[in-house]
Amino acid sequence: MTSTPDALGIANSIRRGERTATEVIAASIAQIEALNPQLNCFTAITADMARAMAADMDRRLSTGEDPGPLAGVPFAVKNLFDIKGLITLAGSRIHRERPPAHQDATLITRLKQAGAILVGALNMDEYAYGFVTVNSHYGITPNPHDVTRIAGGSSGGSAAAIAAGVVPLTLGSDTNGSIRVPAALCGVYGFKPTYGRLSRAGTYPLANSLDHVGPLTRSVRDMAAAYDALQGPDHRDSLCGDRPSEPVSPGLEQGIEGMRIAVAGEYFSQAMEPEVARAVDQVAEALGATKRVVIPESTRARAAAYVITASEGSHLHLSRLQRRPMEFDPATRDRFLAGAMIPASWYIQAQRFRRWYRDRIRLLFQSVDIVLAPTTPCVAPALAQTTLSINGEEMPVRAHLGLYTQPLSFVGLPILSVPVHQPGNLPVGVQVIAAPYQEERVLRVAAHLEAMGITSAPVAAVDGDCPI
Amino acid sequence: MTSTPDALGIANSIRRGERTATEVIAASIAQIEALNPQLNCFTAITADMARAMAADMDRRLSTGEDPGPLAGVPFAVKNLFDIKGLITLAGSRIHRERPPAHQDATLITRLKQAGAILVGALNMDEYAYGFVTVNSHYGITPNPHDVTRIAGGSSGGSAAAIAAGVVPLTLGSDTNGSIRVPAALCGVYGFKPTYGRLSRAGTYPLANSLDHVGPLTRSVRDMAAAYDALQGPDHRDSLCGDRPSEPVSPGLEQGIEGMRIAVAGEYFSQAMEPEVARAVDQVAEALGATKRVVIPESTRARAAAYVITASEGSHLHLSRLQRRPMEFDPATRDRFLAGAMIPASWYIQAQRFRRWYRDRIRLLFQSVDIVLAPTTPCVAPALAQTTLSINGEEMPVRAHLGLYTQPLSFVGLPILSVPVHQPGNLPVGVQVIAAPYQEERVLRVAAHLEAMGITSAPVAAVDGDCPI
Repeated sequence: MTSTPDALGIANSIRRGERTATEVIAASIAQIEALNPQLNCFTAITADMARAMAADMDRRLSTGEDPGPLAGVPFAVKNLFDIKGLITLAGSRIHRERPPAHQDATLITRLKQAGAILVGALNMDEYAYGFVTVNSHYGITPNPHDVTRIAGGSSGGSAAAIAAGVVPLTLGSDTNGSIRVPAALCGVYGFKPTYGRLSRAGTYPLANSLDHVGPLTRSVRDMAAAYDALQGPDHRDSLCGDRPSEPVSPGLEQGIEGMRIAVAGEYFSQAMEPEVARAVDQVAEALGATKRVVIPESTRARAAAYVITASEGSHLHLSRLQRRPMEFDPATRDRFLAGAMIPASWYIQAQRFRRWYRDRIRLLFQSVDIVLAPTTPCVAPALAQTTLSINGEEMPVRAHLGLYTQPLSFVGLPILSVPVHQPGNLPVGVQVIAAPYQEERVLRVAAHLEAMGITSAPVAAVDGDCPI
Repeated sequence: MTSTPDALGIANSIRRGERTATEVIAASIAQIEALNPQLNCFTAITADMARAMAADMDRRLSTGEDPGPLAGVPFAVKNLFDIKGLITLAGSRIHRERPPAHQDATLITRLKQAGAILVGALNMDEYAYGFVTVNSHYGITPNPHDVTRIAGGSSGGSAAAIAAGVVPLTLGSDTNGSIRVPAALCGVYGFKPTYGRLSRAGTYPLANSLDHVGPLTRSVRDMAAAYDALQGPDHRDSLCGDRPSEPVSPGLEQGIEGMRIAVAGEYFSQAMEPEVARAVDQVAEALGATKRVVIPESTRARAAAYVITASEGSHLHLSRLQRRPMEFDPATRDRFLAGAMIPASWYIQAQRFRRWYRDRIRLLFQSVDIVLAPTTPCVAPALAQTTLSINGEEMPVRAHLGLYTQPLSFVGLPILSVPVHQPGNLPVGVQVIAAPYQEERVLRVAAHLEAMGITSAPVAAVDGDCPI
């Protein structure tokens, strides 16, 4: 592990004149180019644009201008975010035929406005429909902490790029866990704010009623700064509504005094590897959380999330599924085809159940402020591994990675997966969950955990070749 | 035709002591019992309860108490409204097995609170899935103006009971036109306020995202009084939200000065019988409406309304369709079964299109306040009639009765069907349509039309026997 500055560390050093943006960007691009043959995080490197922006920023700095809190910070985005001039692949081969985007996604624009510099696009599962980032068109993104293992997905490139230390800030998307799962397996922070809180304008969807977007970082203060830069109404996305920005950075260090924190029991504490159980215990203990709460019917919630994802995803891709199914990734094709045959009745029932489940969870948050749950049931599985053995039970790896994330994104709660690194073990994640629109609480709890040294996102010392 | 007082006429005479509630209710029940063998509007007569309430009201009146604006007014409800102690049939045979309702529907409670007295439950198409009120379990409700013709549906009993003069006020439900179509064909006023405006608590649904409830009356002032009694938040129906009541009766006579009124062109002016076209022209002329507006993609809107109705309706009845399809009315069975096989993708597309269509209609209402359109394309068809010939084109009767109502309820607009009686012709209806939550405008326009003598709801002189 090496010590690598976080985004605010980089920005502050640039603003203080200790380094130039040009130097930072050149170093980041050099690292990306050195590591990418092995890590395959990036599907596009926007080196020329990035260098030009860095040069421009250095010019502005030299005139005394303040280019923003993220001045000169290299960042990258899952390749389902529109980057002006590039084709938005969304991990698919078919989408190579599309015209280049004519405008950046809103969240890219916002990070640029805060001074950050885009250096590229990141690998993902095709159409964001997976938890592994094993993509038949663009290759596997292995886990920087152990290249024989998966990075998690579908925002695998977004998590691995941070874990590898080549950029301190990325954007991902999360429909059923696609930010949180790779963040956990790669040992970084991954944040999925409340459904509708961050603009999805200029991102390629999977399932409209479940899709979220959000940032991944290596520190909590970076997360707060990124979130503050990203939030706020957007006329390009009516979901954001008129809800004004509520900056979280200023109150980040307020501590957790008076916060009612509980651990999710039953469904969320049943099947997990010992490393995961230990991490949840560690976090709970550090927060003094002794209370347990039960989120009822979470098995049903996960099933309903499956039905809605498959139905909406298949609807989106229907004409392609009919005309050219063999050009889909084999890992998504069958599930999309099956989704196209789901009857409307199932979908209606799933949405109806969702309203019930959401109301139950709202009630629960009347007596607690924060709920803790594991992010995944296991550390990063090996690339070739197909089943997972927990408590003597064998379960398919790919589907079960979302066991603990799916029921929660299902009702749009704000959730940060915080990374726990136990000596000698692969990293695992713990979900810090709050009621809708209580992002500030989530980040305050995370800042407290980070300050106590419970969570951290050290850069992986990448060694060994990816065997596949 | 006979001259029969409207609801407020009855209430005022009772409050002035000219008649007792007991007399009014006795007369109403006697009329119902006399006419029902021929008209088959009522599936239940709550004579004992009604008489007891009337006696109680007379006692209260004698002590100087004011029992409300609808004091002693007999009213009846489509048999999908819960009446405490009765089984809610919703026009079905299967539902006879259900236990009696333990509580009145909210709207029944509200009318009772305003002094009205419930006298019975009214016939309908099974599960409200039809436009004809030809029910294989409970018989046909013919049109009081010509008993060889249909009353329209699915709230056929609700419209026919008023046209026959046996009650001045009824409640119905409208998913695709089920209040407006029978109101038009029976020549009475039928009101479908904005989606969610009136509580649906205690009513049996057809398609949750399209179902509305509302009153039918024989005068506009009755409609305003009933609507004022019915509106307001209801903790039993979250759809009503917190929107406070906005009484319309006080401003009813304000006139239409400054109101921008237009006629719906293209789709809404293409295929109709000459009586219908004439009625729309008459109403437009009386209102000085020379402008025409186009509501784009209304054919698609109607198709989408079909898909949503069939999907949600079939979802609701799925277990019954699987276990005992032959106990459904043949008129609904096949459509429900077909609905159960609709893929989720169609449903999702229909809901997606709906958001687009709603936004287009909202834009349109920036330049007009009221839009006029025919309610049905024809006068009441004969009972045995299966096709309709308009402009030389043959079309199936049952489906086409909703041609002009379906695309509008699809996006929840408030609409009143006003009755136009041309000498020697059967009555027809014209839809007075406003932007969401602009019920007051709709009723003011209707009051103006009624005052000008353009619209009216005379009681039918029932003669001849129903031939079927």
